Amino acid sequence: MSELAERVLSGDPRAIARLISYSEDGDPRGAEEMKVIHPKAGNAYVIGVTGVMGAGKSTLVCEMARELRRRGKTVGIVAVDPTSPFSGGALLGDRIRMNELVSDEGIFIRSMGTRGMLGGLASAVFDAVEILDASGKDVVIVETVGVGQAEVDIIKIADTTMVVLVPGLGDSIQTIKAGIMEIADIFVVNKADRPGIERTVAELESLIDLSHGPGIRRVPVLQTTAKDSKGVTELLDEVNAHEAYIRSSGRFDERRKARYQAELVEIIRKRLMTLIFDEDKFKGRIESLLERIQQKEMDPYSAAEEILAKLLK
Amino acid sequence: MSELAERVLSGDPRAIARLISYSEDGDPRGAEEMKVIHPKAGNAYVIGVTGVMGAGKSTLVCEMARELRRRGKTVGIVAVDPTSPFSGGALLGDRIRMNELVSDEGIFIRSMGTRGMLGGLASAVFDAVEILDASGKDVVIVETVGVGQAEVDIIKIADTTMVVLVPGLGDSIQTIKAGIMEIADIFVVNKADRPGIERTVAELESLIDLSHGPGIRRVPVLQTTAKDSKGVTELLDEVNAHEAYIRSSGRFDERRKARYQAELVEIIRKRLMTLIFDEDKFKGRIESLLERIQQKEMDPYSAAEEILAKLLK
Repeated sequence: MSELAERVLSGDPRAIARLISYSEDGDPRGAEEMKVIHPKAGNAYVIGVTGVMGAGKSTLVCEMARELRRRGKTVGIVAVDPTSPFSGGALLGDRIRMNELVSDEGIFIRSMGTRGMLGGLASAVFDAVEILDASGKDVVIVETVGVGQAEVDIIKIADTTMVVLVPGLGDSIQTIKAGIMEIADIFVVNKADRPGIERTVAELESLIDLSHGPGIRRVPVLQTTAKDSKGVTELLDEVNAHEAYIRSSGRFDERRKARYQAELVEIIRKRLMTLIFDEDKFKGRIESLLERIQQKEMDPYSAAEEILAKLLK
Repeated sequence: MSELAERVLSGDPRAIARLISYSEDGDPRGAEEMKVIHPKAGNAYVIGVTGVMGAGKSTLVCEMARELRRRGKTVGIVAVDPTSPFSGGALLGDRIRMNELVSDEGIFIRSMGTRGMLGGLASAVFDAVEILDASGKDVVIVETVGVGQAEVDIIKIADTTMVVLVPGLGDSIQTIKAGIMEIADIFVVNKADRPGIERTVAELESLIDLSHGPGIRRVPVLQTTAKDSKGVTELLDEVNAHEAYIRSSGRFDERRKARYQAELVEIIRKRLMTLIFDEDKFKGRIESLLERIQQKEMDPYSAAEEILAKLLK
């Protein structure tokens, strides 16, 4: 085993940070290390946190981490910013609060963009979760911003998915219901001290009524005021209850399998796209095909077929 | 030329709808038709509309379509719902308003999910724009919900990208700036009759100041109250000004090239993923690899390499 993998497995934060960077950068050394640490991963419980912007998710995640530390658990946090492909940076305002936690050795925090040519959860996010898991963290929290594809994809990586809303969303609660109802294991209405909390909770409960049926676990609605640390204990108790539920019903193994499948898809996608669009072998050809597409001498489908014919067995 | 392609090119709405469905469903007949119509596309001007949820984007898009019709233009609308992978349906509340427009033969409206294994703008969205373009629509408006990857990717398809906000976002304006500042050709603050409009516009202008420099076109901030049809004329005049700017500066051809590249990437990605994950040739093998990954006898990277070795020349 390499020195880096050994240090990751022993929980060394600098080694963890470096291996996550390898994954983010597509450094081939990352893949080799990931192969080595895989057998040591799988013990961490993964909590996904998604929801609308401005719902105070980062504050909530910080408070959850604090409470988990009080319960003697070590915590990894992966904050996924779908808006980062351009800036490569974190959402500063929200992240500053997290810095308070950085001095605690039982917590590791990493902010990641969804860089790469296409959306969804990047393979680096899967890797970061597996790295933190293998490093011995008891719980890994993955937070995503917004409600795009990366947010819906969070269910592929999380054992328990929380969808965080705020009071007074009005029409928005209708708007988000299509995709989000299905992914929530737990609804959290944060900023519960704000006006309109009763209405928002009632609307959520009505929506849950629609999808709820006999023999199906009813998705609970929790209220938190993360900035005052209110409701966080109850929320983590609910996560424990959900864990017990999926473990006893066989859904835990199904979710883990779905996670590995999503990870496999993502690794293959990334490798193929790198091969086609980054390597010199294809670059010149693609450039001339694009020229011909623009001149209407060629169409994108025929161009794709030409490239695939060169690529595939 | 096939009868379907001929009918699409003549603007027949039922043929347009069918060809878009072929693309959405991955029906191989779609690809063949797309090859035929490609040379006829490229004349429509493509406007991308994205922004925060609840900003009234659909209402704004409807009002833009109405104003474009008054200006004698035909209009295609593609509404992309990133939350649809589960429901496959449209966001009903917002779409009902659009139904008012359906009786106008100069307007074609299609709501699409971002179905498929991974996010970003699906190839079906590119196809829908090209189909509407080839069918003779003068303007195609692509609307996306939220600010995930599909939203950022809208710049790959649009000639002019609008980012729509509402007054009183508070912290959110800080939160979104990282990814959204860079994609906006025009900022629109809709619901301009609401309190806080001056502050939101002032904050936006400050943000623009930061990124603005000599020789760079300053991104304008427009105010609209779409529900009362206010500000829409000025907004479309601004789109015309932006079109003149990109055409005179050579950016128009660059943007079109980027669009074809993104489309090519998406077609190739979809073909490869279908080949690997949907066809019987690989299905059984992937199933057994996933089993071994879960048992820690195999890791995802080695599994990916095994599949790629079977696939590639």
